[in-house]
Amino acid sequence: MVISQEAIGAGKPAVLRRRGPVLERAILEAALDQLSTVGWGGLTMEGIAARAQTGKAAVYRRWPSKHALVVDALCSALPDVGDMPDLGSLREDLLFLVLRMRESMYSQGGLAIRSVLDECDHSAAEPFIDLIVRGVIEPGKRLILEVIRRGIARGEVRADATGDIVADVVPALMMYRAKLGGRDICEGDLIEVVDQVMMPLLRS
Amino acid sequence: MVISQEAIGAGKPAVLRRRGPVLERAILEAALDQLSTVGWGGLTMEGIAARAQTGKAAVYRRWPSKHALVVDALCSALPDVGDMPDLGSLREDLLFLVLRMRESMYSQGGLAIRSVLDECDHSAAEPFIDLIVRGVIEPGKRLILEVIRRGIARGEVRADATGDIVADVVPALMMYRAKLGGRDICEGDLIEVVDQVMMPLLRS
Repeated sequence: MVISQEAIGAGKPAVLRRRGPVLERAILEAALDQLSTVGWGGLTMEGIAARAQTGKAAVYRRWPSKHALVVDALCSALPDVGDMPDLGSLREDLLFLVLRMRESMYSQGGLAIRSVLDECDHSAAEPFIDLIVRGVIEPGKRLILEVIRRGIARGEVRADATGDIVADVVPALMMYRAKLGGRDICEGDLIEVVDQVMMPLLRS
Repeated sequence: MVISQEAIGAGKPAVLRRRGPVLERAILEAALDQLSTVGWGGLTMEGIAARAQTGKAAVYRRWPSKHALVVDALCSALPDVGDMPDLGSLREDLLFLVLRMRESMYSQGGLAIRSVLDECDHSAAEPFIDLIVRGVIEPGKRLILEVIRRGIARGEVRADATGDIVADVVPALMMYRAKLGGRDICEGDLIEVVDQVMMPLLRS
């Protein structure tokens, strides 16, 4: 049996012997897993090492701090909002969009991001917020603006509904309900967002 | 000079000798002050005692935990959204409302509430969320619905714009922008919320 230096350090036999990218991937996965379960507050380099079945030294050799590791973990798991198929009507496009956004919110990367946003105070969250805005918020906003542009072209949406604040309404309502609603966002919530808010807000 | 037992415990002469409600008020004020400055994460019973110029024992005698103390501190400082004067038009009413809500957000109580919401993970935030919903969110929602009802009576607002989700749009956008905007909410943001979102959303 091969015993790695790190495992000796931790006083346990190595279950897995991995190197380079394979071990790095396992550490990043462990960080995401810990973020979604124990949250930012409960996250420790020890916990991540244990979850990745490696030693703490192996983690610190690659990332000097919890912050640096979490930035890389979030980068590796940014939910991909993908492209918007044209479903032929504003309402169908909006329903597709909100379902896609809810999927992203509850993906492993989405849960990790919300854990960081929910728990970090402002100064601690700064390096993450920039990453989240560029990696998730902006791509989501581009999809919404694409749906709005198509609606304008079809004559379904008023021509001046292209402001940034209009594109913020869907993610803002989803974040607000997830934070204060005391339960997960259900399909009924999404249909309310579309039929009671976005359709009347956008109609021409 | 009178030296209190608590001050002897802390190894320092008492600067102030207060009892009962006066001391309690000072401790609650100190907790709010610490929440707005060092945040939930940085808040300690020691820090609160020091800020209130009393001993840690005096704090623990009244509140068994940081959680219990913060619940009482938030209760004591819930921003009062007050009543809505009728300004004669939907736009004027909405502008008044969003200015009032921003004032609440940046009051001492509002900053303390946001600190708790921003930093606590879900399980830690539970006892606070109920308090915040009943003490701040629901009163704010009543004001918005009052503005909408008046607008319907004036014929400015469509009759079916009375859903809960419609009343969530303003606070959701304010929370979202405060969290992800990287700066304080300014009057320009409020005017955008009114003119680009609420006016088109509500118009009859």
